[in-house]
Amino acid sequence: MVTIKDIAKKLGFAPSTISKALNNAADINDDTKQLVYETALKMGYKIKRQKNSYGLSERRVCIMIDNMDYENNEQFGYDLILGFKDAAMNRNWDVDIIPMSLNALNPIARNYDTYMLQHKYSGAFMIGFSMHNDYIRNLKKTQFPTVLLDNHITENLKVGYVSTDCYEGIRLALKHLKKLGHRKIAFLNGTKNTMISYERINAFEQIMHELNLPVYDELLENGYYVPDCAKYHVPKFLKHGATAIVCASDLIASGVINEVTRHKLSVPDDISVIGFDDMPFSTRLSPPLTTIKQDRLSLGKSALILLDGLINDIPISKMILRAELIERNSTDVAKQS
Amino acid sequence: MVTIKDIAKKLGFAPSTISKALNNAADINDDTKQLVYETALKMGYKIKRQKNSYGLSERRVCIMIDNMDYENNEQFGYDLILGFKDAAMNRNWDVDIIPMSLNALNPIARNYDTYMLQHKYSGAFMIGFSMHNDYIRNLKKTQFPTVLLDNHITENLKVGYVSTDCYEGIRLALKHLKKLGHRKIAFLNGTKNTMISYERINAFEQIMHELNLPVYDELLENGYYVPDCAKYHVPKFLKHGATAIVCASDLIASGVINEVTRHKLSVPDDISVIGFDDMPFSTRLSPPLTTIKQDRLSLGKSALILLDGLINDIPISKMILRAELIERNSTDVAKQS
Repeated sequence: MVTIKDIAKKLGFAPSTISKALNNAADINDDTKQLVYETALKMGYKIKRQKNSYGLSERRVCIMIDNMDYENNEQFGYDLILGFKDAAMNRNWDVDIIPMSLNALNPIARNYDTYMLQHKYSGAFMIGFSMHNDYIRNLKKTQFPTVLLDNHITENLKVGYVSTDCYEGIRLALKHLKKLGHRKIAFLNGTKNTMISYERINAFEQIMHELNLPVYDELLENGYYVPDCAKYHVPKFLKHGATAIVCASDLIASGVINEVTRHKLSVPDDISVIGFDDMPFSTRLSPPLTTIKQDRLSLGKSALILLDGLINDIPISKMILRAELIERNSTDVAKQS
Repeated sequence: MVTIKDIAKKLGFAPSTISKALNNAADINDDTKQLVYETALKMGYKIKRQKNSYGLSERRVCIMIDNMDYENNEQFGYDLILGFKDAAMNRNWDVDIIPMSLNALNPIARNYDTYMLQHKYSGAFMIGFSMHNDYIRNLKKTQFPTVLLDNHITENLKVGYVSTDCYEGIRLALKHLKKLGHRKIAFLNGTKNTMISYERINAFEQIMHELNLPVYDELLENGYYVPDCAKYHVPKFLKHGATAIVCASDLIASGVINEVTRHKLSVPDDISVIGFDDMPFSTRLSPPLTTIKQDRLSLGKSALILLDGLINDIPISKMILRAELIERNSTDVAKQS
């Protein structure tokens, strides 16, 4: 076990300086803190859990959140955080929520491990980050147990991810459409070059083959997770005779319904539409949306369970949840062509 | 909530008869018990957790084991069960071990849900079963939270599985062999038509492509999880110029080493061999075996964590653990041909 004395000896500082720096004391300057954190991490220093005022060991983890709304129950992050906090309470973990946009000016926050050590977190759940982000690059070599959503880091035993089984979800959606007589089915995917978009397009093509349905290149497109992207792709889908469109999110599906309507066609009479997520607003679309449900509360709970496992040295790589098809009114029998 | 009275009314029996049957009393005959169990299950009856002698709710789960050795630490099941029991202890679950071979004559044991209800188990971890087994067929419609090892049941939210990431494992093995100059690499897989063999052959082919290594049909074979299968396939691999053989288990690898030696060739001078599992005996082979490690203790812990999740209505489908490559002496630079 590396101690504060070991770090002090290595740096030629007094042990009290090391201790103050690790506790983020105001009378130690940022450069010294940074040096102490980096040295401590390099030497493999582990935070000792301090007793809190109730005499219990401090057990703190955090949720770092970026590019994702979570303030009200209409938003994707809301149930995710609720589930995480609920499971954390059951296991006596305290949870801090850290909106990363508020850390943009903090130089120490730019280094993930330093930040975690400074704030005495045992682990983190990171949501909404893009893979090109500095923080994600930090994860390749982090020593801190970390859980991601829909994002994979190879060969670091400290990082795992939670996700919804998109093979199962897309299989349920395509079986449903096949039963309704659809054959020319389009897929409007999310942002290109992310792990989850890659998995979903693979799932779509594989399951179309399994079900003996034809796959047309003209009916596969990548959009973005906003309704607006529909107008760039739906016209092509319609031109190539699609009778059904599967979308990578409910937001995209809402845009697709609008775009189909703008072409003087009806959902579901002319075109069937399936979303992904089962967001609260999907029941209020017109027509109410058939969609592949992601159980966000359970995803949040699973993230904490996975993080707790990583903290206890169980090298979990993935936890994958079941998907469910919620049938509403945006799908119907295929129109005879 | 369905009560004992409801079941009594439905069957026209006295409530005391139902209660006795559900408690497996000796003075109720097997036919009556079977009828009561089946009716109770159909009506959605849930076991009430009873208090034990310490005044705590009874929390019991079981491990059902078939076709797998576990009595000593040389065997695959040993650490699996140890890990499961360790995680169970931390969460206050009692665990019973049920060797299924001892239940062959029990007619009630043939129906999984009836058996679980009768013994008041909240859930089970089933290991070593083959997918063709009656028990596995029962799982398609079970109401009891159940965790499998390396086996998937679709569309039943009560059943999940734990597994080791074979893509990561096989990627580490093939990158290691490529670095040593190998190009003609054979794969001796396990028993055909199992989920795990299917995944592993897919992983092997996909990663060979990723690494720009050629895949030859003559170098891909399915064996069985016994050393003996090596003699049916190794001669063909040698004939077709393989310089390395990746095996689906350490047992298979032990047979491969013997077979290569029988052909007056040396491991690793002429042929490199990689196993799968990292069983204790793999260090004692000659030469000590390079192998893809399955962390069986963590698999067992994960199985309990997953089961606990399912019991708490978190619809986890899979928990996948990291694989690791353990480099020993059965791999070396490829011989120049």
